[in-house]
Amino acid sequence: MRQDVIARQVRAMREASLDALLSISPENFAYVTGFLSPTQPLMRWRHAIALVTADGAAALVVVDMEANTIRSKASPGTEIAVWREFKFDAINVLAELLHKHGLAKARIGIEMDYLPSGDLAALRELLPAAEFMAAQNLLARLRQIKTQTEIDVLRRLSRIADKAITDAYRSVRAGSSEMDLAAALTRGVYAQGAEYFKLMIVATGERSVFPNVGPTERILKRGDVCRVEIFPMIGGYHAGVCRTAAVGAPPPEAERIWANLTACKHLLLEAIKPGASSRAIYELYLGKLGELQLPPISFIGHGIGLHLHEDPYLGPTQDQSLEPGMVLGIEPLVYETGFGFGMQNKDMVLVTEVGCELLSDYADTDRLLIVD
Amino acid sequence: MRQDVIARQVRAMREASLDALLSISPENFAYVTGFLSPTQPLMRWRHAIALVTADGAAALVVVDMEANTIRSKASPGTEIAVWREFKFDAINVLAELLHKHGLAKARIGIEMDYLPSGDLAALRELLPAAEFMAAQNLLARLRQIKTQTEIDVLRRLSRIADKAITDAYRSVRAGSSEMDLAAALTRGVYAQGAEYFKLMIVATGERSVFPNVGPTERILKRGDVCRVEIFPMIGGYHAGVCRTAAVGAPPPEAERIWANLTACKHLLLEAIKPGASSRAIYELYLGKLGELQLPPISFIGHGIGLHLHEDPYLGPTQDQSLEPGMVLGIEPLVYETGFGFGMQNKDMVLVTEVGCELLSDYADTDRLLIVD
Repeated sequence: MRQDVIARQVRAMREASLDALLSISPENFAYVTGFLSPTQPLMRWRHAIALVTADGAAALVVVDMEANTIRSKASPGTEIAVWREFKFDAINVLAELLHKHGLAKARIGIEMDYLPSGDLAALRELLPAAEFMAAQNLLARLRQIKTQTEIDVLRRLSRIADKAITDAYRSVRAGSSEMDLAAALTRGVYAQGAEYFKLMIVATGERSVFPNVGPTERILKRGDVCRVEIFPMIGGYHAGVCRTAAVGAPPPEAERIWANLTACKHLLLEAIKPGASSRAIYELYLGKLGELQLPPISFIGHGIGLHLHEDPYLGPTQDQSLEPGMVLGIEPLVYETGFGFGMQNKDMVLVTEVGCELLSDYADTDRLLIVD
Repeated sequence: MRQDVIARQVRAMREASLDALLSISPENFAYVTGFLSPTQPLMRWRHAIALVTADGAAALVVVDMEANTIRSKASPGTEIAVWREFKFDAINVLAELLHKHGLAKARIGIEMDYLPSGDLAALRELLPAAEFMAAQNLLARLRQIKTQTEIDVLRRLSRIADKAITDAYRSVRAGSSEMDLAAALTRGVYAQGAEYFKLMIVATGERSVFPNVGPTERILKRGDVCRVEIFPMIGGYHAGVCRTAAVGAPPPEAERIWANLTACKHLLLEAIKPGASSRAIYELYLGKLGELQLPPISFIGHGIGLHLHEDPYLGPTQDQSLEPGMVLGIEPLVYETGFGFGMQNKDMVLVTEVGCELLSDYADTDRLLIVD
């Protein structure tokens, strides 16, 4: 159990006049505990719930088939209430736990954007005097400023992705296939310690214009532009990195467009700093795209951590002031260049006290990577 | 849009006196449309919703950034209402669509085990005269009996997984690493046309006792028992196959335990037929385990298709009579043999008119696979 996170939640409860917070999404459960309940992200009825009370007590509700795994990972002495998968009694066990903690008439914050409607109805029936309040924004806000432990794992994941893609490009040449790239890439992320990955985009030549496509048997040929992206995971955390390469000498228009995207990237790296407005950065970026005659995009970056996309967005959303400890994915891209290829660079950055630090710093992407 | 599925939903609505059904989970959306809204499974707020009315009209609610992809996949002329991601107006757009279809005072079935509480509250506010009814069981029940199209994709996926695992075992020998197995496995599933996969379990030697573990740098040595499992995906469908192999000559106790698990498998293949009771099969299996002095397990199989685990379970759940067209994953396993290794065989089977058909029929698993 993460005492620093529990302390953050306690402070937030005081400000919001809540008596307890329930973390029920995989990301918020992992935020409190430091680990995922393994199959919760795969089967949404396998509820795993972390209760934190305003006086700092914490307890978990977990499913019987994950109970041993979770006991082995939680701090010794952690209170764990177990529900039985084939009795479907997660909400009953949760209600008993809330009763036991004197919360039957309390103000309880819960994720209304995750808790299924049927479960909330059951909970209200079991605890009619309790007041359930939407707490998803409060919880998301806490997760925006990463702890040192989180920064460490995100830095590690950023390098895993960056090195795995770079090494995969180095392992192939004209005549290799997208499958060769994919096999090297998968191996690279696991070999560096990733536990899993989400998405693997391998899009080469004429396929490089498609947003979300996996590898095929397509053979790389000289002059191809290639986009490769992957999101390795450790302990529920994600980093996303995308790299673009040319096979052999890049076509001149590819070098020109890449130089423009690189200028956009440096514009972002200059602009991302404490106090900067998320929306102003997006507008600055749109202006630069217009100047370079590149097409506009709907957002240019987003928070990342226990969820693939977290607040803040660098986009046309609610404006937010950047703060030290935020980790953002930034992604200059152009899928339709007019020349039959697409290009994308996706980096991970940490907002520091004075500016930002590039976490995906393995490959030098100011020049196009070359497969040869 | 799948007219056969729409017709099934229309019949089910008549029986349940519903005016409309909303499919909002990724699996039920894909069931109606035949495809996934690509990023909905990754970001739960990217709602994709399929409306089917009692008179057979169908319409979709999709997010702007997926709208072009979905238009290209849906049948020409499909009614598509688009909501704007950064306006967060999915529920407003849904309410307008329901209004337009004359459903503002209707009885509308919805997945109360998926729809987040906050969205239901918003929907009720926008359509105060409509009645929203829990329809998750009805929808799950329809998905249990697979259509021919679904059987075809599940057969294909079963063979992809089976062949990829078998070929991965063939590609390694003592001295290779779990990473070598993993790289061959990943390559194998994509090379055969899978679009993605969930879970990849590579657990060899002393690691073979752990339920859900990915590959490491562990080197295979003679006498190892190895468990490899993977769930390739196409169009939102999953198949899960697990195979166990020994490196070199298997230890005698491994052959003995495998023979017992194989007897359990054949018991299942005999027992699975139309009219058989899901619970009786589970109890029969438990009896056999006891007879063979193997430890009991909490369930022995489950439906599979657009979700990793679907009803019916072959376990201590609600009893259900098996029907032709059901597709089940069955998984004889023993993680703790007392000899420091674990073993598992996971197959995909189709309930036919007279019995069942093994869909994962590539490897002969009656004898332990051998890596040599």
